[in-house]
Amino acid sequence: MNTFGTIFRVSIFGESHGEEIGVVIDGVEPGIELSEKDFIPDIDRRRSGARGTTPRMESDEPHILSGVFEGHTTGAPLTLVFRNGNTRSADYARLRDVPRPGHADFTANVKYGGFQDPRGGGHFSGRLTLPVVAAGVVAKKVLAETVAEETHGHVRFKAEARLVEIGGVCDPTQWEALLAEAQAEGDSLGGVVECVVDGLPAGLGEPFWDSVESCLSHALFAIPGVRGVEFGDGFAAARMKGSEHNDCFTADGIEGHEGLVTPVTNHAGGVNGGITNGNPLVMRVAFKPTSSIRKPQRTWDFSAGEMTELSVGGRHDVCFALRTPVIVEAMAAIVLADLIDRG
Amino acid sequence: MNTFGTIFRVSIFGESHGEEIGVVIDGVEPGIELSEKDFIPDIDRRRSGARGTTPRMESDEPHILSGVFEGHTTGAPLTLVFRNGNTRSADYARLRDVPRPGHADFTANVKYGGFQDPRGGGHFSGRLTLPVVAAGVVAKKVLAETVAEETHGHVRFKAEARLVEIGGVCDPTQWEALLAEAQAEGDSLGGVVECVVDGLPAGLGEPFWDSVESCLSHALFAIPGVRGVEFGDGFAAARMKGSEHNDCFTADGIEGHEGLVTPVTNHAGGVNGGITNGNPLVMRVAFKPTSSIRKPQRTWDFSAGEMTELSVGGRHDVCFALRTPVIVEAMAAIVLADLIDRG
Amino acid sequence: MNTFGTIFRVSIFGESHGEEIGVVIDGVEPGIELSEKDFIPDIDRRRSGARGTTPRMESDEPHILSGVFEGHTTGAPLTLVFRNGNTRSADYARLRDVPRPGHADFTANVKYGGFQDPRGGGHFSGRLTLPVVAAGVVAKKVLAETVAEETHGHVRFKAEARLVEIGGVCDPTQWEALLAEAQAEGDSLGGVVECVVDGLPAGLGEPFWDSVESCLSHALFAIPGVRGVEFGDGFAAARMKGSEHNDCFTADGIEGHEGLVTPVTNHAGGVNGGITNGNPLVMRVAFKPTSSIRKPQRTWDFSAGEMTELSVGGRHDVCFALRTPVIVEAMAAIVLADLIDRG
Amino acid sequence: MNTFGTIFRVSIFGESHGEEIGVVIDGVEPGIELSEKDFIPDIDRRRSGARGTTPRMESDEPHILSGVFEGHTTGAPLTLVFRNGNTRSADYARLRDVPRPGHADFTANVKYGGFQDPRGGGHFSGRLTLPVVAAGVVAKKVLAETVAEETHGHVRFKAEARLVEIGGVCDPTQWEALLAEAQAEGDSLGGVVECVVDGLPAGLGEPFWDSVESCLSHALFAIPGVRGVEFGDGFAAARMKGSEHNDCFTADGIEGHEGLVTPVTNHAGGVNGGITNGNPLVMRVAFKPTSSIRKPQRTWDFSAGEMTELSVGGRHDVCFALRTPVIVEAMAAIVLADLIDRG
Repeated sequence: MNTFGTIFRVSIFGESHGEEIGVVIDGVEPGIELSEKDFIPDIDRRRSGARGTTPRMESDEPHILSGVFEGHTTGAPLTLVFRNGNTRSADYARLRDVPRPGHADFTANVKYGGFQDPRGGGHFSGRLTLPVVAAGVVAKKVLAETVAEETHGHVRFKAEARLVEIGGVCDPTQWEALLAEAQAEGDSLGGVVECVVDGLPAGLGEPFWDSVESCLSHALFAIPGVRGVEFGDGFAAARMKGSEHNDCFTADGIEGHEGLVTPVTNHAGGVNGGITNGNPLVMRVAFKPTSSIRKPQRTWDFSAGEMTELSVGGRHDVCFALRTPVIVEAMAAIVLADLIDRG
Repeated sequence: MNTFGTIFRVSIFGESHGEEIGVVIDGVEPGIELSEKDFIPDIDRRRSGARGTTPRMESDEPHILSGVFEGHTTGAPLTLVFRNGNTRSADYARLRDVPRPGHADFTANVKYGGFQDPRGGGHFSGRLTLPVVAAGVVAKKVLAETVAEETHGHVRFKAEARLVEIGGVCDPTQWEALLAEAQAEGDSLGGVVECVVDGLPAGLGEPFWDSVESCLSHALFAIPGVRGVEFGDGFAAARMKGSEHNDCFTADGIEGHEGLVTPVTNHAGGVNGGITNGNPLVMRVAFKPTSSIRKPQRTWDFSAGEMTELSVGGRHDVCFALRTPVIVEAMAAIVLADLIDRG
Repeated sequence: MNTFGTIFRVSIFGESHGEEIGVVIDGVEPGIELSEKDFIPDIDRRRSGARGTTPRMESDEPHILSGVFEGHTTGAPLTLVFRNGNTRSADYARLRDVPRPGHADFTANVKYGGFQDPRGGGHFSGRLTLPVVAAGVVAKKVLAETVAEETHGHVRFKAEARLVEIGGVCDPTQWEALLAEAQAEGDSLGGVVECVVDGLPAGLGEPFWDSVESCLSHALFAIPGVRGVEFGDGFAAARMKGSEHNDCFTADGIEGHEGLVTPVTNHAGGVNGGITNGNPLVMRVAFKPTSSIRKPQRTWDFSAGEMTELSVGGRHDVCFALRTPVIVEAMAAIVLADLIDRG
Repeated sequence: MNTFGTIFRVSIFGESHGEEIGVVIDGVEPGIELSEKDFIPDIDRRRSGARGTTPRMESDEPHILSGVFEGHTTGAPLTLVFRNGNTRSADYARLRDVPRPGHADFTANVKYGGFQDPRGGGHFSGRLTLPVVAAGVVAKKVLAETVAEETHGHVRFKAEARLVEIGGVCDPTQWEALLAEAQAEGDSLGGVVECVVDGLPAGLGEPFWDSVESCLSHALFAIPGVRGVEFGDGFAAARMKGSEHNDCFTADGIEGHEGLVTPVTNHAGGVNGGITNGNPLVMRVAFKPTSSIRKPQRTWDFSAGEMTELSVGGRHDVCFALRTPVIVEAMAAIVLADLIDRG
């Protein structure tokens, strides 16, 4: 299904090399100020250009088709589209015959019996994260407004994701060299993104199937290339003792929570029993290295019926994880906007 | 919401110390042989008794209330209940006043305004994984039958989860000592469970929101105490190069896949682009250490309005992760039964 | 699917002659006073006994399994069961061979391949309206509380359904004779139920797919034996002119709406554009005559492969519509509780 | 929510006077031949022009944005848009102040706090039935293909809706005069549409909440202006005896069902117990008279705070029911495509 969410509901459509890609957002409350320029900053964060990302200049201008009137949301479904341009799709027939390792070429072929749009990954393309970022902008506005209303302006909602690791290296001063080296080798790198969400009310999430972590991980694993998701201490928690991992409660002196009972530490990452506890929500997302590499790989040629060697040409990110923090942020916001609407 | 799944749909109800807990399973095809004894082996795997698990003998006998007639599923909703017994609930009032670190006492109180059933964790209790295990038994039967039908008996569905790490130690010969030590200290340990699912057809999952990993992680993070979920190389993938992580395809000599194009290696864990690729599905789940520990912890006393010291008495697992492999297996089966029904 | 609703969510399970039937209600807010005796009045309204209804004394006592603690809802799923008793199921094998006209015997057989529970209609039985009535009791409490809160007690929610027609006759004084005559003939009668819901806020419902009428009719047509649903003037509206059917607005002197703009008349039945307008919601539901009749009918005998004559014996309502007003009320309340929760 | 369906899922977006309106259809199987010209015949049936319908020439040309590649569906979400043109929206401010009787002006204002797009009815406009008709075209193709496959071409799916009554008159030869008269009076007329669906397999639908009638009525009441829905004998069934209304089964000589057990008559309209029985599905839908009339009506002026007289000018259908048969057909097809996918 191409729809996510119960009340704040997001549907993504389009293919990498089709006419338009877009998003329909349902459940946006009326009266929120919104115009096309509100989307620019986040879209720019996702855009290519920095070292390690593809130089392709995408056509990333948002067009609002419905749901906004006189500068405010109307309460009706909000539709945004992006017109595709600059799409080279000469060689896609080859993708059906020689599936690229690490890509969805093979599985799409199995699932759709060869009818899928193979150009640029079609509906599996990373380009579909562009409407996700747009939906994230709307979600953040909904959250900011709701949190401000509920706390009479005392608390400010804030989601911030950043890359904390590239190719296993945590020190950003070394990344430039690492990327240059991988690029020279025709190879690629992965990375880890950390996202912290602050200003959330305690009490979001449901005790069982729709725990906060369940809903967040559902959305995060929808981002192409994610291999792992963890909250708080994450996998490290499995190596800790209870006395180290448990967060004790206090009402004394947690900055920004004066007078409120709050966990002193944040090993749990802001959630107990699937429900937010008032602490910052902390999650980490592992991205695999970019699948498209120039370095030759052996794979199967369906038409020839034999193994062949494949070098994936064209413009590719050496490390697409560089572009993902804003996508992680958007996914987190989309999930939380839905949970806050569900009450 | 307390329901999970689109076609194969599972609803869990009940509280740890209420009269009964149970599960309603919708979307089970008619004609599957099923009786109460089919549930016993998996229920036994979850049951307490081994070192490191609580000695409490639960009342784990399943009762089928609906959906089975003359030894076969009818196609109508299948309802199973377990009657609770052996429940000591003397001291629960204290849980509202002094929330146990790591537990949902505090967040439940915020969310339900003090009306939640606090006895034994109420609806947040690990005891609710018992109906999950029962639903997993039904899901595995559905999967086994569907896979056998679709492959004319050539492929056998198999899901197998096991603990691969306790307290950071991978060597099982050391676990006994580790558990004894933690128990003596009044402390607890976490662990990591790995689950491998074999015999799945390629093509399961949806390209975006309902990727196989999205759906699986959603269910896995619903298990109390999960801190991280990863697929294939998982977080390690973020430290690999593309040339190391990519799985190349071949039609030569993969045992059990003779004549079929299949990835040679399995770094992706059986999924490309959110869709199964015919390889075994591999996932790992990180469990935190048991929250209830005898060792004293400082926490807030709501009634006294001051910090206090809390030692959580009673019968507790030193390492509840020991009991979770069958739960992880059940969750995987529940998700996959739904995905296979969705086609 | 056996679940209805988005936030206030109802799942029904069980078979007429199984061990238990029941309902799981998700999304009930915590803190509502609730005990088993609250269900008795509505259950009694549905119960058999009056002329025209079957003399079978059902085992209609409700048991709360979960979701209530110390006399209040907890916010966790609320489960209620009814134990079946007094079930005669001798002759059900015959139902597979000789499907009763008007019943689901034939279609159930096609759908479930003969595995359905055929006793007493199994999961298709009218007995499943008993848990619906129970869910309705909870829904009415939710609505009453929400309306009272939102209007500071100024408005009282009220849903009231009654039979307005039996066998085409609107005058209740003639019904007794009509029923006696049909019973003597071994035949049966249908009827029409009208339900009026008052005290609803304006603004419930969604502009397109989930219009108030869409959601209500969805639930109402789930009641066994419903053949038609209409709102306001209903089918008669198709025979009116716009100038007759349109409801004009006024702020003058509508009793109970002093100072509020309200439609003067109520041809629309309380809805404009799928959204409640503050007027009473008015719907009518047509019930077919009871399908089980003593009068012989010709039908097909699958085992003999020839036509046969069938007289449906046993205890049956001459006019089951007599028992349905409380079911219609319950369905309306279930839908409206969900819509009011969705905001 | 703006989405309908479980597997075959339709989302509608846009406003009458916005830039574009459209539809996203999820769950369309890959490989179905589809191009923009396939939509023309049904779009033409809905188009204005005949007496009794507005002379406004809408911009009804469909544009496929995604989901089709090289003339076939890809399996990814199918998006279609229609660009709005010829939109006069001068006077909409007045609609907020003086709500038109019978329209959603008042309820939209309550629900969306004045932020809705009031031009031409906004998201409540009948113009949104244009993407519904487009989705219906896709649904009919899915149904035709599935039925043909399952019956090896022996059965042909067919949905056909037609107007059977205008202003209470069943004889079409009198309609022209009736419409002319209403137009001259500045008044409007309603009508009844009957839809018959043939070629459906027995076994569609679910026994309780998602009965065939529940799902169909849900979609049909989403069409603006519907006041009633009935199946088979409908409201007349409530006036019949069981012996008259019951459909007996036979295996003898039902044309087109040779050798199959089928009901002899079709009082039930093709459904027993919420599940199709192999007979043609028969439903009737009552449409109210057009709300916009030239004839002056008294209503409330919010800005002046007093009653006023309103004559709704502009181009309007005297009887919009004339344009609805293709919409009813589309809705029926959308629901049935989903039910057939659900199995």
